[in-house]
Amino acid sequence: MSITLYSLCGADVARPFSPHCWKTVMALRHKGLSFSERPLAFTAIPVAESGFSKTVPILRDGDRLVSDSFQIALYLEDAYPDAPTLFGGEGGQAMARFVEAYSQTTIHPVVTRIALKNIHDMLAPVDQAYFRETREKFLGKTLEEVETARETAISTLPDALKPLRHMLKTQPFIGGDGPLFSDYIVFGALQWLRITTGSVHLADDDPVKDWFERCLDLHGSEARAVA
Amino acid sequence: MSITLYSLCGADVARPFSPHCWKTVMALRHKGLSFSERPLAFTAIPVAESGFSKTVPILRDGDRLVSDSFQIALYLEDAYPDAPTLFGGEGGQAMARFVEAYSQTTIHPVVTRIALKNIHDMLAPVDQAYFRETREKFLGKTLEEVETARETAISTLPDALKPLRHMLKTQPFIGGDGPLFSDYIVFGALQWLRITTGSVHLADDDPVKDWFERCLDLHGSEARAVA
Repeated sequence: MSITLYSLCGADVARPFSPHCWKTVMALRHKGLSFSERPLAFTAIPVAESGFSKTVPILRDGDRLVSDSFQIALYLEDAYPDAPTLFGGEGGQAMARFVEAYSQTTIHPVVTRIALKNIHDMLAPVDQAYFRETREKFLGKTLEEVETARETAISTLPDALKPLRHMLKTQPFIGGDGPLFSDYIVFGALQWLRITTGSVHLADDDPVKDWFERCLDLHGSEARAVA
Repeated sequence: MSITLYSLCGADVARPFSPHCWKTVMALRHKGLSFSERPLAFTAIPVAESGFSKTVPILRDGDRLVSDSFQIALYLEDAYPDAPTLFGGEGGQAMARFVEAYSQTTIHPVVTRIALKNIHDMLAPVDQAYFRETREKFLGKTLEEVETARETAISTLPDALKPLRHMLKTQPFIGGDGPLFSDYIVFGALQWLRITTGSVHLADDDPVKDWFERCLDLHGSEARAVA
């Protein structure tokens, strides 16, 4: 069977940037699965796979279609039980939901406020119009208004990463001695920031930056190759 | 073998309030173990068990002594493998460290700023002097200065609990369908707040309050009986 991952890109298909799609890329590599990635522009997602999902990632594995990065990870764990585990057992699967909630509520809002205009500028014109309309409606501000608070947002990023920094005193990955899907959840958020803005905006001596670099080195440094 | 838990109390031994000791009480009950609890005043800890640890909890299980709530949970998981698991596997054990880091860096500072003066007022005079000296040195403020910002601290508590609130859309406990040690980690912090101030300071319709109430109901409602 062949596996296809539909992900998200701007005008340059070689720079897929969605945090959720990066979680899935890392999960597929963790499982040792080969796949072909098809990055889609925002406005191309609703027509992919006959409108299967309004959002990416979408995974096609043979005749099976799955959307949502966590659901895809659950699917992969179930479908490929002999490959390295993504969760390390039932407790790890449940707690990965807590890590996901932390990333969504604490890191994603900060990354959005830093990277919003950068993301807009990466898109093709038709997607720029879609992006501006949907994001300005959601945020209640123009992209340019968000942009003016960019430096403030950057200054709050280290604080948002306090839990991870504190944990890194005990172990090198959220998964323990090695990475699990919970690492890829937080990695995806910072990879999104790195690709869209060119930096993770963390000090060189920040243990979180060391952890991020360790993640970039995983699975043949595939994630490092996209910049 | 008999198990003894050394915990922390103020002038009233019937109201042990340490967040870390509550983690251990819940972990022992989760494992179905009976134990005798010996609440100690702050200044009594350094002489307990011949000065084994500067902090509680301290667990004595037969001739074995263990301190630190996480180390005790690891010990219990290892020593009582046939009792219900505290971690749900290796992934869950690793990710419980992330939950611990979240609780320590995000919830504990807020609870400290709400409850500091209440805690002081619960102590016997000799412990009040110790508490004032060590806490004022650590915080760089008098207890009374911290007290003036109490309402502000209360207003920031819901924000500190955002990750948990978001996760509760997916599952009823951090451990998934049922509680694991990771739940007791966060529960301990809010139980500390509840016992020292008389309230968890959350709205009645907050899903985090529902989760906290579910935790109070666990293991024969032992945690609810202390107020």
